[in-house]
Amino acid sequence: MAHTTRDKEKLIARVRRIKGQVASLEQSLVEEHDCTAILQLIASCRGAINGLMSVVVEGHIREHVIDPDHNPSPQQTEAAEELIAILKTYMK
Amino acid sequence: MAHTTRDKEKLIARVRRIKGQVASLEQSLVEEHDCTAILQLIASCRGAINGLMSVVVEGHIREHVIDPDHNPSPQQTEAAEELIAILKTYMK
Amino acid sequence: MAHTTRDKEKLIARVRRIKGQVASLEQSLVEEHDCTAILQLIASCRGAINGLMSVVVEGHIREHVIDPDHNPSPQQTEAAEELIAILKTYMK
Amino acid sequence: MAHTTRDKEKLIARVRRIKGQVASLEQSLVEEHDCTAILQLIASCRGAINGLMSVVVEGHIREHVIDPDHNPSPQQTEAAEELIAILKTYMK
Repeated sequence: MAHTTRDKEKLIARVRRIKGQVASLEQSLVEEHDCTAILQLIASCRGAINGLMSVVVEGHIREHVIDPDHNPSPQQTEAAEELIAILKTYMK
Repeated sequence: MAHTTRDKEKLIARVRRIKGQVASLEQSLVEEHDCTAILQLIASCRGAINGLMSVVVEGHIREHVIDPDHNPSPQQTEAAEELIAILKTYMK
Repeated sequence: MAHTTRDKEKLIARVRRIKGQVASLEQSLVEEHDCTAILQLIASCRGAINGLMSVVVEGHIREHVIDPDHNPSPQQTEAAEELIAILKTYMK
Repeated sequence: MAHTTRDKEKLIARVRRIKGQVASLEQSLVEEHDCTAILQLIASCRGAINGLMSVVVEGHIREHVIDPDHNPSPQQTEAAEELIAILKTYMK
């Protein structure tokens, strides 16, 4: 089972929070809140999207690039973990 | 009038497109699409949020940091434009 | 006096540390260190460059976009500080 | 042979160009060039470091995470290529 299926409920919960953040952002624009409040809402949406990306990329590497059913060598597993650690600094 | 008010309709249209993208992403998770399709949808949402951020930051600099009613000097206007140009490469 | 002149010694010290990091990276490639060590060195260089960018952009906003000799309004100063806070999350 | 060994000359040439860019940046600070010129040099260094990171990450995925000697399945190869395509948009 793919990680996006196994972790389906958690991922959907994350996406629903992002939906809520985007709805707040829309509301702020409609109600003409000040620019700073709007910038902060956009920055929050971006942070949430980046967090989701990081989680899905991590699952993608661990389950699809490294396939646990394909007997990955310890070197491959280590290379995957190192890659994940480095990518996390990019996806913040 | 603030840029987020003057450009209100355009900004709201952008946010509504993002809402649509986040809804597609939710749907893909619910329907258990494959991980790559999901990664691409997340990357699209991120691109759209970054594009929105870039536009709002640009307006914020031109209208709030540089205040056109405060007689900015040509040096300030130039410094603002240079800042905007550099930030665009970060917010892609 | 421009911030890059006033803070000249600190900025040069930062750039010299970056030079040292890039020299270590070159050495690692010459000596055929493993890929992970090389990735970590590149990530360190990137972090150091981003830190430098953040500091110089901050000075640029505070002294050139907002010109302290041009009697910025409290609103402009506040808008500049908000911009700096948001940009810091991008330049990490 | 690891990709950082096989592509050693090309990678070293890239790192030497970065060294040259960092040296120019140092010189600009020493000579008190204006802030915009300095910002542009920092942005160029950052672009060059990101380009190098992207190349090394790509090699890391293709040779260490996916190990060509470990008979990767077509699905793994495809998952790796999709990951590389998505990461390229992050490492620009």
